[in-house]
Amino acid sequence: MSERQDAVEDEPAVRNMIESWAAAVRRKDYEGILRNHSSDIVMFDVPLPFQSRGIEAYRKTWDSFFSHSKDPVPFDITEMSVTAGMDVAFAVATLHCAEPSADGKFKGLDVRLTVGLRKMNGRWMITHEHHSVPAAD
Amino acid sequence: MSERQDAVEDEPAVRNMIESWAAAVRRKDYEGILRNHSSDIVMFDVPLPFQSRGIEAYRKTWDSFFSHSKDPVPFDITEMSVTAGMDVAFAVATLHCAEPSADGKFKGLDVRLTVGLRKMNGRWMITHEHHSVPAAD
Repeated sequence: MSERQDAVEDEPAVRNMIESWAAAVRRKDYEGILRNHSSDIVMFDVPLPFQSRGIEAYRKTWDSFFSHSKDPVPFDITEMSVTAGMDVAFAVATLHCAEPSADGKFKGLDVRLTVGLRKMNGRWMITHEHHSVPAAD
Repeated sequence: MSERQDAVEDEPAVRNMIESWAAAVRRKDYEGILRNHSSDIVMFDVPLPFQSRGIEAYRKTWDSFFSHSKDPVPFDITEMSVTAGMDVAFAVATLHCAEPSADGKFKGLDVRLTVGLRKMNGRWMITHEHHSVPAAD
């Protein structure tokens, strides 16, 4: 396959990888969540800590997420734009999940998501995730 | 210059562009802030709105920022990692600014920042920014 054909297929490859990762989150499938992540990932998550560095710290952010999550876990990408080059890519997305409210029920939560990827040995790997909600006034 | 030499110089070029942008913010220099931004930029900012699409909406996020900012404006990048390919790049950074507190004074605020870039006609352009603070408990 030519380099040009490779590049044309990178955008859907990155998009499918991120959709598969979100599906793994909905199944609470840690192996699926971590499958395409670099060992030195830098994570900016919705709650504290301010940042998490490395795959073990990244895994812990999911322990925290699942401990506060509705079951089954809502984690649905509502919009996604992928910019993929030959060896670096990023995705800009929004997703819908839920958070516990004071009355013990759950309320919907819209999250902004940016994902950074690098192609290593011919394979796309996630090296960065930034999840956030707008700050309260 | 060969393609390979170009690529080697992309990381410092992106880094310098983002440092220049932060310096323009400190000077409240809108021309400098907007100089290397794509007309279709998607901005996820610290406060609402949830997202801002396009350069005019992006400009308005700075009106909002400056209306609440200390003078002179603190906006200092404290850490930055750049991943640059041939035609797509992203930067992961933290920065220090200030926010007004209830007593009318200002308190320091640490912000997480992800920047997405695409090379267009040989020139790096910012197509995405994601600024956030961790959500309050």
